[in-house]
Amino acid sequence: MRIEVIAIAEEILKGMIINTNSSYISATLSRLGWSSSRHTVLPDEKEALTEGLKEALARSDLVITTGGLGPTLDDITRHVAAELFSSDFTFNKEIAEDLAKRYGKDLPSLADQATVPTKAHILKNAVGTAPGFVFTDKGKTLVLMPGVPPEMQPMLDQEVIPYLKKNFSNNLKPLVETIHFCLINENMLDPLLRQLKNDYPSMEFGIYPGYGVLTVTLKSGNTIDLKAARDRIVSEFPTHQFTGSSGKIEEALSTLLKEQKKTLSFAESCTGGLMAHKITSLPGASDFFLGSLVTYSNQMKEQVLKVAKTTLESCGAVSKETVEEMLHGLLEVSQADYGIAVSGIAGPSGGTQDKPVGTVWAAIGERGKKPDLFRLDIRGSRQTIILISSIKLLASLYRKIRYGVSPQEVS
Amino acid sequence: MRIEVIAIAEEILKGMIINTNSSYISATLSRLGWSSSRHTVLPDEKEALTEGLKEALARSDLVITTGGLGPTLDDITRHVAAELFSSDFTFNKEIAEDLAKRYGKDLPSLADQATVPTKAHILKNAVGTAPGFVFTDKGKTLVLMPGVPPEMQPMLDQEVIPYLKKNFSNNLKPLVETIHFCLINENMLDPLLRQLKNDYPSMEFGIYPGYGVLTVTLKSGNTIDLKAARDRIVSEFPTHQFTGSSGKIEEALSTLLKEQKKTLSFAESCTGGLMAHKITSLPGASDFFLGSLVTYSNQMKEQVLKVAKTTLESCGAVSKETVEEMLHGLLEVSQADYGIAVSGIAGPSGGTQDKPVGTVWAAIGERGKKPDLFRLDIRGSRQTIILISSIKLLASLYRKIRYGVSPQEVS
Repeated sequence: MRIEVIAIAEEILKGMIINTNSSYISATLSRLGWSSSRHTVLPDEKEALTEGLKEALARSDLVITTGGLGPTLDDITRHVAAELFSSDFTFNKEIAEDLAKRYGKDLPSLADQATVPTKAHILKNAVGTAPGFVFTDKGKTLVLMPGVPPEMQPMLDQEVIPYLKKNFSNNLKPLVETIHFCLINENMLDPLLRQLKNDYPSMEFGIYPGYGVLTVTLKSGNTIDLKAARDRIVSEFPTHQFTGSSGKIEEALSTLLKEQKKTLSFAESCTGGLMAHKITSLPGASDFFLGSLVTYSNQMKEQVLKVAKTTLESCGAVSKETVEEMLHGLLEVSQADYGIAVSGIAGPSGGTQDKPVGTVWAAIGERGKKPDLFRLDIRGSRQTIILISSIKLLASLYRKIRYGVSPQEVS
Repeated sequence: MRIEVIAIAEEILKGMIINTNSSYISATLSRLGWSSSRHTVLPDEKEALTEGLKEALARSDLVITTGGLGPTLDDITRHVAAELFSSDFTFNKEIAEDLAKRYGKDLPSLADQATVPTKAHILKNAVGTAPGFVFTDKGKTLVLMPGVPPEMQPMLDQEVIPYLKKNFSNNLKPLVETIHFCLINENMLDPLLRQLKNDYPSMEFGIYPGYGVLTVTLKSGNTIDLKAARDRIVSEFPTHQFTGSSGKIEEALSTLLKEQKKTLSFAESCTGGLMAHKITSLPGASDFFLGSLVTYSNQMKEQVLKVAKTTLESCGAVSKETVEEMLHGLLEVSQADYGIAVSGIAGPSGGTQDKPVGTVWAAIGERGKKPDLFRLDIRGSRQTIILISSIKLLASLYRKIRYGVSPQEVS
């Protein structure tokens, strides 16, 4: 079955927002063994939208769209879809009653949102006002969902996926191995993958580098080959592998800490709370995460973490000495088993000859043991430096706990 | 000029990562007055990639791609593009010397990355190993850039944009007004927009709801109409408007605090550092942002913010009383002029009948004045609750400072 995902949103095409919906939908489909062959973003404009939907329906069996279902002027998706499937509109009493119950009879958009294409199957919107729709004709299926993620996500999980499971046999389950690594780069892995490609010509290899992490996928019809290839890759980088369905290092670290019943806290300066945000985005963070003291100003470093004024003055806020004292203060204030302290220059200003933008000092410590103190040198924009530092430090702690590998001090 | 942006990345189609590159490119083009008519995500697979690029080049004058330029097996973009533009490959000594200088002569991918299509203009990669390319033929231009954002972003800014400015006259500058609002929803604005659509039939209206914020765009050939329509919209919601090129409330708040030379700090629980991350993502945050005490555990709330054990026990961590004490403790520890304290239940577990998932208590205070204490009730997933709370609280502080509007206490 060929599947495409379409986001209908002028604001994505203008670069005002990022398209998270299409990835969310593809990730959900992937877990069921369905793969998406294309994503498209189209404007809220009749001609372009009609053309885009027609093309997608010509190429694919199932097309899933988000966006353009609201009551406002530029929400034209259901009208364009109804035209493509030659459907009239009708007032749906059930939807109207449900909206009146949840939002009151005076909801201005009530009549509009309750007027729906006669040929469409209705998808309930438990969170907002715009229902979703499924059109089917001549073996082609078009699913329309709202674009606001908190409305789309429950509709996908509770309405669309059950519909798809019922109406499409899940006939596509290739044999795939996915391996996640942290703190290695594409170039380190490539020679081995080329060798494996020679040894297993029919196997498909994918290599997906991210910030501080990297995912390798192997696809083959032969389970024995698949396992052999996987083992060769893992054995070459035994202390870099991590596990977890999301491929995110924070998920792996969280699982590890929960298993070992250990707790964690941070003292963040340049990462500005991103390490804490990554950890607390995952359910169950409160089981092991105690908190993060984001001490952006020197005064906060002194007041909250008891970093000595003389250290800040003589060595600077971005120094080995400062992060060592930040970690020490952190483990005094929080009762955590593990701590990470970080201070760096995220830029664009603030860099010097000695400490250019991208210089990041970190301390990783386990209570009662000597901490690891090391420097990262990261190139890129402010946001990239913040992101890469955060991921590399979480990955460094993971490797320390799981494999006993200490991050190397750079200078 | 018609422009399309294409991301070539299997991992986006699998939902493993989100497509940030296309939005970044479109945002950059928008600032120059160029708009993108479509985004597409294609796999690293020869047939599908060839078909997708051909279609885009048939529809549009300029196609900008990211991804698939690395040295690894599945990086096939430059080969597919070279075939479309009937180009041979040649070894480029200059690129080879530059790579050898930066990465050493033994870089395994050196020969591969220095072998480039003869017909392409080369785009320098200052950060990584893969150069970019521009192909032009018969009025069609195809730009290829690497997919890793820290490599793509400087290449776009330093190589692609100057190339486009030189080779394309910037002939598309429609009259557009963009208005950003916070803490109002689509339904509140829609009746007015319908009225305006009647009054100015030739004007184009766009309404883009985000989390806690909303953007309206007006497009017209007539400046007087445009200004009149803009003024009517703003005058209906005088205390909800905010300004700034990004449409992000954290940018508006940062600008306001810098103008007023006031400082800011947070005490975060359920938002887990996201408020601090949003503020510190922007350059110059250290001018006014002192820090955030992410006290996730009760022990940290007591130890760092001096919240009374009795308050936590009798009222709970998610309560008016707790956030009031958190704010008080915050303003004791940090010297900030303004503070926000927040504690809530992000879920999926931890909800009760009285305090369901999505219950968030907040305190917003100015030093020396009585704080505003109020509750938000947010529906959605854990990540949505964290995100919406963060944005709504930053927006509430913005409205308080700029318009003197206090957030309403809910209960």
